[in-house]
Formats: sequence, structure tokens, C-alpha cells
Amino acid sequence: MTFAPPTRRYTYEGDGASIYVDSFATIRRESDLAHVPADAEKVAVRMIHACGQTDLARDLVIHPGLVAAARTALQSGAPILTDAHMVASGVTRARLPQDNDVVCTLRDATVPDLAAEWGTTRSAAAVSLWGERLDGAVVAIGNAPTALFHLLEMLVDGAPRPAAIIGVPVGFVGAAESKEALVSLAAEHGIDVPYLVVRGRRGGSAMAASALNALAQERE
Amino acid sequence: MTFAPPTRRYTYEGDGASIYVDSFATIRRESDLAHVPADAEKVAVRMIHACGQTDLARDLVIHPGLVAAARTALQSGAPILTDAHMVASGVTRARLPQDNDVVCTLRDATVPDLAAEWGTTRSAAAVSLWGERLDGAVVAIGNAPTALFHLLEMLVDGAPRPAAIIGVPVGFVGAAESKEALVSLAAEHGIDVPYLVVRGRRGGSAMAASALNALAQERE
Repeated sequence: MTFAPPTRRYTYEGDGASIYVDSFATIRRESDLAHVPADAEKVAVRMIHACGQTDLARDLVIHPGLVAAARTALQSGAPILTDAHMVASGVTRARLPQDNDVVCTLRDATVPDLAAEWGTTRSAAAVSLWGERLDGAVVAIGNAPTALFHLLEMLVDGAPRPAAIIGVPVGFVGAAESKEALVSLAAEHGIDVPYLVVRGRRGGSAMAASALNALAQERE
Repeated sequence: MTFAPPTRRYTYEGDGASIYVDSFATIRRESDLAHVPADAEKVAVRMIHACGQTDLARDLVIHPGLVAAARTALQSGAPILTDAHMVASGVTRARLPQDNDVVCTLRDATVPDLAAEWGTTRSAAAVSLWGERLDGAVVAIGNAPTALFHLLEMLVDGAPRPAAIIGVPVGFVGAAESKEALVSLAAEHGIDVPYLVVRGRRGGSAMAASALNALAQERE
């Protein structure tokens, strides 16, 4: 069986590498990234690329230690822990420096009962199953505000500390508040874990995955 | 081994059903959905829910036949064809009426060579592998503008017609143009396939998956 491509009828760039180069150039031309730590500039650019919105920059808050902490952890083989399978699906495995594990416990068989017993969401209950793997991990919350609140409560209770937290849950109920709680974790509870958040309602699995993909390697 | 939930330290809604109800109520209060076909209102609401942005409404263009065509196709067992594994990962299988196949051919072993030979992206080349499965399928392009352009070119060349096309590629190079090409397909080429697009740069796998999840079932 032979395949042939369809007749070209539209004018568009078909070279994947050129598309990336042009996209990143447009983003850098249109975005105000002055407040982003210098070593996090590529992270911001890749997140803007994932959502198509240069004004995302204004809602980005990135801890000055985020990139070094997350990159060092991944280079040491730390796992990525995430609240959503879509985030895990979006991680480009070829970019991971140590073929790092990407863990999502949301479909663990015990999750529905734990959530019911604890009066919380399955996304939140699933975070408790990360257990000792939290120690030194790179966490990415791209969906559920309750998962981020639950994680912060675990940390205040003395859970092992991750190396870094990507906190970009999305939505209309608790998303903005959970991200402000992460930003305030050091001031309020003395727990200084490097973080990245998108203030407000925006967020989601694509933003979380793009941040992870940028942190995994310096190379664009 | 016994698990205990962490001490509640933040005030937040932990009931998943209530979070959905409150979210959808906020979206309906803040969004102007007057231009959306009546039977597509829940699709728009779920897409806004996925991105956290009520102003998404202004960029939504939904063909009047979209919901009926896509829902009928899924109820008849049509497959979902998508350009990105993240989209496939975001489809809630329990909502599918016929345990429909969800197909992404991006990692097919032949794709890299086809893309190189054809001078296009892997995402575009992978669309050619859908073949006869296109006939009556529900297509969702949530990532690559080149995949959407390639699909439109296949259709103009006489490929089997899908039942509906969710066209929400994201980004800075070709995304807006590819979606305008889909909107114009009937006027320019006489091919009237019901579609949904998000005009401009916005889009992505979460929007595509949320649209599919809303189309799969009337129930919110």
C-alpha cells in the first residue's frame, strides 16, 4: 500500500523545527517577561506556547529557586508526581534526563473509598498515595485545586518535601485560592519549596506539561 | 497500612459534585453564550470550564449541526480520531456511549519517514494514517495546525468525510489560519462538515477533550 500526501492547497509552514523557532520568536517579541527569573525565561516561553496567550506572562509567579531545584532533581532521577493523566501524557519522555518515572495515582483502586471516607475529591485523596515518593520529587498539579490544597496540608503536617511544585490547577472554584496558598506557604508556614504558579483561574494540564518539558532540559 | 487525611487548614469545597455545579453556575453567570447554538450550550460551558476563561465564548464558532452530528455518530459507535495523545488521554471513557475507539496515530512507526518524505510535520503525516476510519468519525485536532490543514486538504482531494470536526489547534504559527480554513471549507470547497472552532491562537488538548466529553453525553 502506497500513501501519497494530499494536494497542497493552503499556504502554511510544514517544517516542525521552523514552526518552533517562529513561535518562540513571536512569543519573545510580544511578551513582557521582565519579572520572570532569568533562568526561567524558557519555562515561561514554553508555557505561553502551550496556551497561545502572551498575556499569560502577567499571571506567572516563579520562585527564584524553581528552575535550579527542579532541574537538579530531575537530573538526579527524581520522579514527577502529577494529579492528572493528561499532564503525564503531555510529558515528552525523550526530554527527561534520567527516564524519570511519571506518576499519577488517580486511578488507584483505593482512591474512590478514601475520597468518600475523607469527604474530599478523588484528586485530593490520590495525592496521599504519593507517600514517601514526595521526598525530592517534582510535583505538577495541572487540574484540581483540591489536590493542591491537600498537598499543602500534607506538607504543613510534616510530609516529605518535594524539590519543586508546579501549581497550575484551573477553574472557577478554589483554583486561584489554592495557588495563592502555595505562594504564601513559606510566609505562613515556614515551608520554602520552590514553586511556579499561574495566578487566577487559568492553568491546566497543557501548562503543567509544558512547564515540566521546559524544566526537563535547558535546550529548547 | 492505614492512611489518614491531613489536617484541614484551608477553607475549600471538597465535594466533587458541588465543585462542578458551582463552576458551571459561575460560567453561565459570566459568559455571553447568545451566539452559541442552543444544543451546544453545554459544550461551550465545558470548554470554558477546561480553560478557566469566560471570554473564550467570544472566539467560539459552532456549526448549527455540530452537536447532533457528533452525538449521533458517537451513539452509532463512530471512533474519535485525534492528533495528540493528550487529547485522547483527556477523553472520559465512562462518558462514551459505545465504548468508542479513541485513535491517535502520531506514534505509528511509519510517521517520521512519511513526514520527512512529504516535507511536513509528523502530526500532519499521522492524519493520513486515519484512512477509511475517517468515514463518519468524530475528529478532534487539539494541537497541530498542520494536522488540520492536512485534513482539510485530504477532504478536498476526496477523502471520506468525518461526521464532525473539533478544530482547536493552538499557537502562533498557522493556528488561527487553519481554523479559518475550516470555517470556510463549505463556502470555498463545497464540503459542509459540521465543525467547532476557537478563533485565534487559543486552543489545545484540554479544550478538545472537554468538547468531546460534552458531545459524548447530554448529561453534565
